[in-house]
Amino acid sequence: MANQVIIDAGSVGIVETQYFHYDGKLKLESGRELGPVTLAYETYGTLNEAKDNAILIPHALSGNAHVAGWHAEDLEKEKAEPGWWDFMVGPGKAFDTNRFFVVCSNVIGGCNGSTGPNSINPETGSPYATDFPIVTIGDMVNAQRLLMDFLGISCWYAVCGGSMGGMQSLQWAVAYPERVARCIPVATTHRLTAQSIAFDTVGRAAIMSDPNWKEGYYYGGTIPADGLALARMIAFITYLSEQSMHEKFGRKLRSAEAYSWQFDPEFSVETYLRYKGDAYAQRFDANAYLYITKAMDYFDLGAQTGSLVEAMKGVRSRFLVISFSSDWLFTTAQSREIVRALRLNGADASFVEIESPYGHDAFLLEPEELTKLVKGFLQ
Amino acid sequence: MANQVIIDAGSVGIVETQYFHYDGKLKLESGRELGPVTLAYETYGTLNEAKDNAILIPHALSGNAHVAGWHAEDLEKEKAEPGWWDFMVGPGKAFDTNRFFVVCSNVIGGCNGSTGPNSINPETGSPYATDFPIVTIGDMVNAQRLLMDFLGISCWYAVCGGSMGGMQSLQWAVAYPERVARCIPVATTHRLTAQSIAFDTVGRAAIMSDPNWKEGYYYGGTIPADGLALARMIAFITYLSEQSMHEKFGRKLRSAEAYSWQFDPEFSVETYLRYKGDAYAQRFDANAYLYITKAMDYFDLGAQTGSLVEAMKGVRSRFLVISFSSDWLFTTAQSREIVRALRLNGADASFVEIESPYGHDAFLLEPEELTKLVKGFLQ
Repeated sequence: MANQVIIDAGSVGIVETQYFHYDGKLKLESGRELGPVTLAYETYGTLNEAKDNAILIPHALSGNAHVAGWHAEDLEKEKAEPGWWDFMVGPGKAFDTNRFFVVCSNVIGGCNGSTGPNSINPETGSPYATDFPIVTIGDMVNAQRLLMDFLGISCWYAVCGGSMGGMQSLQWAVAYPERVARCIPVATTHRLTAQSIAFDTVGRAAIMSDPNWKEGYYYGGTIPADGLALARMIAFITYLSEQSMHEKFGRKLRSAEAYSWQFDPEFSVETYLRYKGDAYAQRFDANAYLYITKAMDYFDLGAQTGSLVEAMKGVRSRFLVISFSSDWLFTTAQSREIVRALRLNGADASFVEIESPYGHDAFLLEPEELTKLVKGFLQ
Repeated sequence: MANQVIIDAGSVGIVETQYFHYDGKLKLESGRELGPVTLAYETYGTLNEAKDNAILIPHALSGNAHVAGWHAEDLEKEKAEPGWWDFMVGPGKAFDTNRFFVVCSNVIGGCNGSTGPNSINPETGSPYATDFPIVTIGDMVNAQRLLMDFLGISCWYAVCGGSMGGMQSLQWAVAYPERVARCIPVATTHRLTAQSIAFDTVGRAAIMSDPNWKEGYYYGGTIPADGLALARMIAFITYLSEQSMHEKFGRKLRSAEAYSWQFDPEFSVETYLRYKGDAYAQRFDANAYLYITKAMDYFDLGAQTGSLVEAMKGVRSRFLVISFSSDWLFTTAQSREIVRALRLNGADASFVEIESPYGHDAFLLEPEELTKLVKGFLQ
């Protein structure tokens, strides 16, 4: 091995992304249809004979199917990174792969292997771009259900995701109550507030204002990197708490003792945001960013029935709802609303707020408490 | 009069912006010089013979010298608006013009009549654009001091401003302790947090990414309206509280019962932000936005002396510090730091947190409590 990656006993090791192709048409909530549909997915652990040990982990906005372990090709890189929730999935971990069969699939509308705006539209032979239909959290879950059927799983042992992954978890429990035994929504909400929609819409405006966006038809040309970097920078601020930004950056200057007296980034927080934004613009697709943020803005679990309590009427899953004290994007108060609606329906719902300074990103940064809580719940 | 504007007994009536020209050079904190300097300013009420009844109201980021009353030319407009703090300044109001002589001047670096990046650089005969020097809150105050001397005022009866106006108020009290009898910093901070700098830097990046910005040399051509609108939209979110956005917009759609299934703004909060951003881009100068936000980012009252407490050592003014409960941009905690530093120096400092749902913008939206507090303090 070219570098120093140590694949320890807790790792699922080298993994590969797989692809499920559905040749039919998926009926979308908008009334439009999408098909054929490809879903990129990964699995860890072994599906037992009864096929009742499967856990689904839906991912967040910028996530993908690669939850845990290492891709062989990444090991060649200077800086290899495991999957995005590696601390949660593996032998002996919260989602113990000695016991469970863990599945994650990239959402439709995304850009990491599942059908999305950068996929070829079979009707034109060119990428869909903005001719791709608007998809919803419900549509993402319906696509995952196709994969579930393909894998021969009739009921998830558990569904657990953070942020937009939590929205999908909630959607699963409401749309397919018989097929979800346990549900663990983490750092999430049943609908975005006006403030969250506001941040999303400014991010989308940044992308759509980039002259390289060209109404979405930029594939094969220059990507709207500036717009996407801006969108990411805006969103990034909402993922951190004021306190964690203060502790990490404060008013530190990047590389000088004194002010530069010009406009280029000079505070550490500026150069960091710029770096994060630019890196993101190289790895994520701007159109996918539009589609996925729009899906989140549209998510409103109680809209169809008139209230969240009414929407939760049919749930059968046991719930563990987790929030983080410093998360100001999807707050503890929002998690409490979910728990309240569940309990008003007599559902078995526990709730834990984890004390953390890390803001919304805490679901990716608090391995110990998350592990204990999830392990206990899955016993 | 063409329209229905009612100039009541509490109004200062029709007012005119005046211009003070300083032919010397203003030495800036950066080490550069700026000159000649023009300051646009307005006054309300009458300066008494002792010249000891003058109150200075420094303005916030997007404010200007027009604090109160009406410009004659505005009365012809469809929608006439008085000055930005009209409820505070006039006969019988908090800043009672029967008693006080109220002064406000547009900051240097701005775009409303005082010397700024859109002014003509005497060395080139063209607008400064980004050859304009970076200015600080200290420089803004030093320019105001030139005006003070010109008006023959040796000591302000009071200095009172909100947000960046509060920073200037604090700067006045620290830089010119003998010339400020009373100081009322409202909804402000002695230095921006990493989070506030982050919001500012994304706003600047939006402007600087706009291809029409052209390194600042866009005067006479197309203005970088998209970039400035984006910057304003980002900032606007930070001016409102989550609660006030929820109450004002919630998840309401602008003009339809159902989702549009496309990316154009459709939630009320989206169309409102877009409208506000676009309108702002037509009335404000993008370079001025860069300069003024940079001045705020650089403001750090305790930096030179090593601590805020040390910086406050020489203050002689009486203080009334006011914050708003739902202001998450410049928080009550930040105001408390100011009060603490003042009291540790034995200064006479009162502190009031006004309960308000309006977030940072509350200083423009809470006439009653502000009036009572300021009136009482000025007795």
